[in-house]
Amino acid sequence: MRAAVLHGVGKIVMEERPRPEPGPRQVLVQVTSVGTCGSDVHYYEHGRIGDFVVQSPLVLGHEPAGIVVQSGPRAGRHHPGQRVSLEPGVPDFTCAQCRAGRYNLCPRMRFFGTPPIDGAFCEYVVTHEEFAHPVPDTVSDDAAALIEPLSVGVWACLKARVGPGTRVLVTGAGPIGLLCLQAACAFGATQIMVTDVNPARLGRARELGATAILDVRTESLTDALFEPDALLECSGRPAATAQAVRTMARAGRVVLIGMGGDEIPLPLTYVQTRELEVTGTFRYANTWPRAVALAAAGRVELDALVSGHYGLDRVEEALTAGTRDPELVKAVVRPQE
Amino acid sequence: MRAAVLHGVGKIVMEERPRPEPGPRQVLVQVTSVGTCGSDVHYYEHGRIGDFVVQSPLVLGHEPAGIVVQSGPRAGRHHPGQRVSLEPGVPDFTCAQCRAGRYNLCPRMRFFGTPPIDGAFCEYVVTHEEFAHPVPDTVSDDAAALIEPLSVGVWACLKARVGPGTRVLVTGAGPIGLLCLQAACAFGATQIMVTDVNPARLGRARELGATAILDVRTESLTDALFEPDALLECSGRPAATAQAVRTMARAGRVVLIGMGGDEIPLPLTYVQTRELEVTGTFRYANTWPRAVALAAAGRVELDALVSGHYGLDRVEEALTAGTRDPELVKAVVRPQE
Amino acid sequence: MRAAVLHGVGKIVMEERPRPEPGPRQVLVQVTSVGTCGSDVHYYEHGRIGDFVVQSPLVLGHEPAGIVVQSGPRAGRHHPGQRVSLEPGVPDFTCAQCRAGRYNLCPRMRFFGTPPIDGAFCEYVVTHEEFAHPVPDTVSDDAAALIEPLSVGVWACLKARVGPGTRVLVTGAGPIGLLCLQAACAFGATQIMVTDVNPARLGRARELGATAILDVRTESLTDALFEPDALLECSGRPAATAQAVRTMARAGRVVLIGMGGDEIPLPLTYVQTRELEVTGTFRYANTWPRAVALAAAGRVELDALVSGHYGLDRVEEALTAGTRDPELVKAVVRPQE
Amino acid sequence: MRAAVLHGVGKIVMEERPRPEPGPRQVLVQVTSVGTCGSDVHYYEHGRIGDFVVQSPLVLGHEPAGIVVQSGPRAGRHHPGQRVSLEPGVPDFTCAQCRAGRYNLCPRMRFFGTPPIDGAFCEYVVTHEEFAHPVPDTVSDDAAALIEPLSVGVWACLKARVGPGTRVLVTGAGPIGLLCLQAACAFGATQIMVTDVNPARLGRARELGATAILDVRTESLTDALFEPDALLECSGRPAATAQAVRTMARAGRVVLIGMGGDEIPLPLTYVQTRELEVTGTFRYANTWPRAVALAAAGRVELDALVSGHYGLDRVEEALTAGTRDPELVKAVVRPQE
Repeated sequence: MRAAVLHGVGKIVMEERPRPEPGPRQVLVQVTSVGTCGSDVHYYEHGRIGDFVVQSPLVLGHEPAGIVVQSGPRAGRHHPGQRVSLEPGVPDFTCAQCRAGRYNLCPRMRFFGTPPIDGAFCEYVVTHEEFAHPVPDTVSDDAAALIEPLSVGVWACLKARVGPGTRVLVTGAGPIGLLCLQAACAFGATQIMVTDVNPARLGRARELGATAILDVRTESLTDALFEPDALLECSGRPAATAQAVRTMARAGRVVLIGMGGDEIPLPLTYVQTRELEVTGTFRYANTWPRAVALAAAGRVELDALVSGHYGLDRVEEALTAGTRDPELVKAVVRPQE
Repeated sequence: MRAAVLHGVGKIVMEERPRPEPGPRQVLVQVTSVGTCGSDVHYYEHGRIGDFVVQSPLVLGHEPAGIVVQSGPRAGRHHPGQRVSLEPGVPDFTCAQCRAGRYNLCPRMRFFGTPPIDGAFCEYVVTHEEFAHPVPDTVSDDAAALIEPLSVGVWACLKARVGPGTRVLVTGAGPIGLLCLQAACAFGATQIMVTDVNPARLGRARELGATAILDVRTESLTDALFEPDALLECSGRPAATAQAVRTMARAGRVVLIGMGGDEIPLPLTYVQTRELEVTGTFRYANTWPRAVALAAAGRVELDALVSGHYGLDRVEEALTAGTRDPELVKAVVRPQE
Repeated sequence: MRAAVLHGVGKIVMEERPRPEPGPRQVLVQVTSVGTCGSDVHYYEHGRIGDFVVQSPLVLGHEPAGIVVQSGPRAGRHHPGQRVSLEPGVPDFTCAQCRAGRYNLCPRMRFFGTPPIDGAFCEYVVTHEEFAHPVPDTVSDDAAALIEPLSVGVWACLKARVGPGTRVLVTGAGPIGLLCLQAACAFGATQIMVTDVNPARLGRARELGATAILDVRTESLTDALFEPDALLECSGRPAATAQAVRTMARAGRVVLIGMGGDEIPLPLTYVQTRELEVTGTFRYANTWPRAVALAAAGRVELDALVSGHYGLDRVEEALTAGTRDPELVKAVVRPQE
Repeated sequence: MRAAVLHGVGKIVMEERPRPEPGPRQVLVQVTSVGTCGSDVHYYEHGRIGDFVVQSPLVLGHEPAGIVVQSGPRAGRHHPGQRVSLEPGVPDFTCAQCRAGRYNLCPRMRFFGTPPIDGAFCEYVVTHEEFAHPVPDTVSDDAAALIEPLSVGVWACLKARVGPGTRVLVTGAGPIGLLCLQAACAFGATQIMVTDVNPARLGRARELGATAILDVRTESLTDALFEPDALLECSGRPAATAQAVRTMARAGRVVLIGMGGDEIPLPLTYVQTRELEVTGTFRYANTWPRAVALAAAGRVELDALVSGHYGLDRVEEALTAGTRDPELVKAVVRPQE
């Protein structure tokens, strides 16, 4: 099979590799669509993310959808032909974190496209059958791929306890911000403000359900007098985060999703006198059934986020599309084209 | 002012009464719309509900909307002309239940239309300013009245922890069932089955968002193979409830909303081996902001539930409308007409 | 190795069986102490518990402690000689219930001494290394065995949200009741009433921390005017349970632990007007670290519950000890003696 | 009556003032013991804490115990002679925060000894009858006063979800740290490490239940390899806090209790990859019944924390005692002596 392999900073090479064999409880999946993500771009441009360093050739891509073509030993969940969205990280299942239902915190997690585990910018992948989630035909291949970033938003909304009546602030209107926005909407929120520095992105947020938008280059969040109960922080900018924390309502929840900066200068008095809760997200757990349900019911708009399709031989182009035009939301790789 | 006063079983008399004066922290509200509820009908037909006995003339009606016309001493929240939806029960605020945020369980609750507290089938009422919740102009008077039964559904969804991905079973498609259905939908549920014995009601459920309906006279709930995570029980029928409990998914939540029957024969093995959680609702707490937000955002359909309007002199007709035609959902009294 | 095998109702036979080999991730454990439980007795006397039917020879015993003697492939957690308390049920780890942290609800659970899985009334057992929990030397072999029933109490306290200030009612002062009592005490409860029909058991409860005891043959629970926030129901008597539910404080939690009777006549009005939460327990999840911590710190008294020791050849005597003398709490089998 | 009144930085004057009259729902309480707190000292030394500025003569003291001597109109909870522990902050009861059970976040809270509300360094105070909590005779006057700082610890443990099996780190072994330690113990924790820079304080921690102590001047927290599930931060030192956060176990809870420093440099990667939860405490809500229960049952040691008694005329001496000797834990003022 063909695979697009990262061989060093800024260098992706097309290779012919043996098609993987599904092991026990695994399925072989023909990949149809794979979303590109900021972390893919980061590995491509820098060769590392924090402690995760690319030390040998690596296939990127961790937002895959596909079709089950074969089941391994003792794998009985799917029939060939089943369209699936893949949850990209498979834990060890047995450690204390897994047993407590927090498998995203499993220290032995194997995650697509994270060194040294190969990802999905290739024609076929194998994974645990329980992490291949069926999607109905009303969900397109692209939408099935975008269940992954939608899961980030679903997880953030669960952490922030978003529901009807929750006033939500989403800082950052990139792909994750737009999916947090849509998730918040689907969880019942009716007042959602989105901030960014890019008018086109803010316009997109407005189309996707934001009830207020704010360009932080020209307007002050403090002056907006919006007192959020939940902050879904997607910008990754420490100073902006600290400022947003200062606008929170009493007993508000701050969820740090965006990466960037080592330290957030947390304003202690606000956290104490308003008893704010601050937490971060690391991937997600048990979100696929929820996210697939929302996509299948048309409660979120995933296809509209796709800004371009690329074959396997154009993965580099897909990864650099967002840099060339920051208004583009989501480049999708189609390994079969 | 005019008031429709219950003077005994089946006997409502129009009386001229003095307009009430707002006390400290209270507002005087001109009543515009009042929904009728099964409990109003029950007091009218039987003179009691359980331990609550009508022992002296009583004004019924506990789903009022209106317009603030005057504020009492130290009441500064509203200006005259403010349209409001009234939360009908005002607690003592200071007891242990209130201090814990469970003011619906306050033993000294004063609740409209519950003996010996007069309700809202009259031209004016007074209430605590914090229990008069502003509504925007996009919410009609009738919808503002129906925030009360919607709150029942919102409270049930909070108890049942309904959200995206939750499979919901609503048993009973009367007014409360239809509002539980809509609340579940607004909380993000995408799979909602509604059961009843009346095809017209089930049809209405389908229109309002049910993804499956089931006529329990002709179809078996067990055969439907629907494994709900949340049961919102609105039928008040013990045997049907026990049967529905047997269909629940592991770790499912059963919320008993419908009244009727002294005892539910709870199937112990199911509750234990699936670790089901069973609870009941008693009115609601802190639901108005959430319910008003949903109505204002158009996430629920309240006006469509109104099946007729009645002046104060036709309260008896309003109370008996549902008995004459069980397909009618909600009779609304308009005291100013 | 020797094993005590149930060959039919009331018939246990000593057999020589091959010592089991630890499989992948498994350890071989030399069994030192095994508690006897009411469910062992029930299988011995009736050959079944509900849907679980003994259809072929079965080794009973699911409260084992022992010493690790060998590790299977890829099992690296323990060294030979490690003293361990065994969690008797190993789930499939990968199903939806397991992934959500509710592994006790796994439909493919393999549980010691539950047909068709053999238990621990034998010299050696194998189990998953993560379900062999180390105990320090301050915890005796018997206490390590009784971590299992203590876990039932710990799980019940977690479900009931017991903590400082919680008023707890424990109905039934058998072994599980006494361990629920001790667990409640260890979770911080300072007001704990225990009921039973046996004065000796009630006396034992008093010694173990009950602040009030009540003999329901001669005294009325209702008259006691004790309003529990948490009911830990260990009697398995439906009528007594329904009566206890009627004494609960507002927002109280009812946890049904005792088995017995198909249906509990749940008093609907109480559940609704006080918004009680009713749930049941099915074994436990993630309790061993908590229970071992309590035992190791001396916060619970386990050895004092042991009323007799029996070699493998006296398992029948151990199982019938409680029937002969209901004041006996816990017979312990010692396979090496 | 006599009152010790702060008239400016470092200046407390004895005054004769009229005995207050209990208003509606209020009781008049003869003050027996009042603990001194770091915030009293701060007002005395600096005239302000953050936005709270002493602008007119102020009576300090917010940890009072006493005896009910008279009830105001509609106050029927207590009889004269009832010994009580006073919860020092009375909210408005009716705002959105109060209705949600978070009365500690009420923006109109009136709190003893916080400008401009007078406190309890005087012979008599009045307060709402529901905030005068009865104590049994087994609880001394001093212990009844120290229910207030114990409540801080109880609240912190509730926020941190401390229970059996929770590994707890308490940073700072001053009065609040020692009470957090004791609260954690009473909530069931069996592994509690306490850090400080003062060996005498650490010794005291050891006596009161710490299972490990660490002098951060000479030992490294990181080297200690203690992975806490809960951090109760009582030192108020931002750098130390940031360091402690780096030692947290996955899914750990950080509760910021100590004040000091405007900003905590929150290590983003740790918060995200371990999904830590960080929050702060602002006083407490609904803790008195829990704290009184623990004191009455002898689960905490309050009297042993008292390091000296002072009459009203020696309030300044009481406030400066801790500065003169940092090993002293708690100076108590006795207004009747």
